[in-house]
Amino acid sequence: MTKPLLQIALDALSLEKGAADAKQAESVVDIIEVGTILAFAEGMKAISTLRALHPNHIIVCDLKTTDGGAILAKMAFEAGADWLTVSAAAHPATKAACKKVADEFNAAHPELKVKKEIQIEIYGNWTLDDAKDWVELGVTQAIYHRSRDAELAGKGWTAEDVELMKKLSDLGIELSITGGIVPEDIHLFKEIKNAKAFIAGRALVGEKGQQTAEAIRAEINKYW
Amino acid sequence: MTKPLLQIALDALSLEKGAADAKQAESVVDIIEVGTILAFAEGMKAISTLRALHPNHIIVCDLKTTDGGAILAKMAFEAGADWLTVSAAAHPATKAACKKVADEFNAAHPELKVKKEIQIEIYGNWTLDDAKDWVELGVTQAIYHRSRDAELAGKGWTAEDVELMKKLSDLGIELSITGGIVPEDIHLFKEIKNAKAFIAGRALVGEKGQQTAEAIRAEINKYW
Repeated sequence: MTKPLLQIALDALSLEKGAADAKQAESVVDIIEVGTILAFAEGMKAISTLRALHPNHIIVCDLKTTDGGAILAKMAFEAGADWLTVSAAAHPATKAACKKVADEFNAAHPELKVKKEIQIEIYGNWTLDDAKDWVELGVTQAIYHRSRDAELAGKGWTAEDVELMKKLSDLGIELSITGGIVPEDIHLFKEIKNAKAFIAGRALVGEKGQQTAEAIRAEINKYW
Repeated sequence: MTKPLLQIALDALSLEKGAADAKQAESVVDIIEVGTILAFAEGMKAISTLRALHPNHIIVCDLKTTDGGAILAKMAFEAGADWLTVSAAAHPATKAACKKVADEFNAAHPELKVKKEIQIEIYGNWTLDDAKDWVELGVTQAIYHRSRDAELAGKGWTAEDVELMKKLSDLGIELSITGGIVPEDIHLFKEIKNAKAFIAGRALVGEKGQQTAEAIRAEINKYW
């Protein structure tokens, strides 16, 4: 059981704003994520720019890849992403294509300190049998979240969420947890053995960002 | 029953190539789609550029929106997209957020010849009850496809695909059909009343593109 990492999701509408947010947060986070909004606004330039600016952080490219897996994975990894999100709703062939690109990249670059990996982002109707298929494919990471829109609609974390996370964790899947995470939420997940990272966006940006990051770290240190 | 339109999906890795492909195909297609690959490679600049170059075509932005619906829909429509794809796997709140942005845009711009619309792109586990929810929300379009990766893995169109399309069509949903469409496939879909468009990518690009487009049109004219 390792200590969960802290990840900032950059959801700015422009690379200028995203890069500034990342610069401000770099000393308090382990992972910098080019969120879906920033990635779709600016394209792969967002990845390559953040990669260049933050050579020692893990960079996540949050495309929620749903199709065209081989091409998108190649594009994201070549731009400098370490981890790429793949939608749970993608066809199994898409997940396999992304995994294959990551494996080939790792084999060609044994010097990589951080291996290229895919993260299954859990959306849509899914079952634990699906999750077993991901493990079978060699996937080791998934992202569990409240959808941003569900969050905006006022949906909170439920006991059912935590139960599902425990079951995924028990399958050996490392979980990144996201969806309006604030320090007061961290204790909810203390029973998740394989908690890989907590992801926050707006909470880590702006004046109070550093303070919030420290508060989340303190909670993490309490429970892991 | 209207005649299905013809749509080119631009899946180039760069805007230069995508814009050139669109230029070559513009006289033979009704709809120009900035495909997921191009959109993720270049960001919203791909939409605004294609919009500027093709003011009289319908422009589709294929983000397969999975979260952050309100922001992504605003971004895509403001960049000039007429229609935006939304993943069937997205939370209902995400679909509703995208629909709301489209409706508000249309209300604010009664002069629009082509209304802003969302298209549910069918991915993941779904049921006809889900489809009824989409209709309930006011969605009128969906995209039915073989996934690109499934196609690459050799999976063909099945009788089950056609049956599901008929059921969706009977719910009043207009269907765009995609996945390696070639002229010889068109007859498979002749019983789909609400066939809105056939989408092809690579088949419409390059030397033989025009010829292929004409062959697809001829097949469409035979059956609709």
